[in-house]
Amino acid sequence: MKLRYLHTMVRVKDLDASMRFFALLGLEETKRRDDEAGRYTLVFMAPPGQPDCPVELTYNWDGDDGLPSDSRHFGHLAYEVEDIYALCQHLQDNGVVINRPPRDGHMAFVRSPDHVSVELLQAGPSLAPQEPWASMENTGHW
Amino acid sequence: MKLRYLHTMVRVKDLDASMRFFALLGLEETKRRDDEAGRYTLVFMAPPGQPDCPVELTYNWDGDDGLPSDSRHFGHLAYEVEDIYALCQHLQDNGVVINRPPRDGHMAFVRSPDHVSVELLQAGPSLAPQEPWASMENTGHW
Repeated sequence: MKLRYLHTMVRVKDLDASMRFFALLGLEETKRRDDEAGRYTLVFMAPPGQPDCPVELTYNWDGDDGLPSDSRHFGHLAYEVEDIYALCQHLQDNGVVINRPPRDGHMAFVRSPDHVSVELLQAGPSLAPQEPWASMENTGHW
Repeated sequence: MKLRYLHTMVRVKDLDASMRFFALLGLEETKRRDDEAGRYTLVFMAPPGQPDCPVELTYNWDGDDGLPSDSRHFGHLAYEVEDIYALCQHLQDNGVVINRPPRDGHMAFVRSPDHVSVELLQAGPSLAPQEPWASMENTGHW
C-alpha cells in the first residue's frame, strides 16, 4: 500500500493577507484554482525547489464562520531557513510580530494572519547570539 | 533567502492511538525523541520514500488542555494513495470511520484520534464506482 504526501491545507479568512505572509517567508505560488461554482479559491505555495511540499491555502469566498482565532489542535508548519536573523528582520519590517524571537540563533515562531503557527529553524549550526534578538522577549504565544 | 519545508506538526492526546492511525495509513516512523526534562515526545512519521515530508506528532506527557475536540482552523493533511478502496477498507476494518467515503473512486476523508482531518486521493485516474463505497453516506464532518 503506497502513499505519497501531497500538501498541508489551512483555511484562510483573507487570501491576499495570507499569500503576502507566506511570500514574505519565501514561498512561491505553484498552483491556483478559482472555483466559481463552489465559490472558493485554492492556492498552493511551496518553497523554491520543493514543489512537492506545498501548503494549500483554502479561501471560501463567502467566509468561514468556523475559523477560530486560535487553535492548539493544529501544531505548526516548519521551515528551515538560510539566515534566521535576516528573515525575522524582513518579517518584522513588514509588520509580522516575532512571537518567539530567535534568541538562540536557532529557532523562531511567527503566526500567519489566521494565527497558523509557523516555526523557523536555522539551517546548520545555530548563529551566534545577536541583538536585537538575543534580549527580545516573547510576545503572545504560538 | 532560501527555505526548506521540514514537517507539519500536530499535537496528540494519545500517542499510541495516533501512531496506530498514521501507521494504518501507511506512514512509517522516521525519527523519535523522548525528552525527559521537557516531558514530551516527538514522533516523526512519513510515507515510505518521502522522509522529507513527515508529520510530527507532539505528545505532552502531562496532557494538553488546549487540545480542542475539533477545529476548522487547521485544514488537513493530504496523501495520495495507490488504491483508495483497499485503504478505506483497511482503515474501516481497524475501526476508523470513513467520514467521506470514496463514492467517486477519487477522494475520501478520515480523521485521526484527535480529529485531525486527513484527505486521501486516488493516484492517477479515479477508480470505477464500487460498493459499498458508491452508496455510502457521509458520517459527521471532516
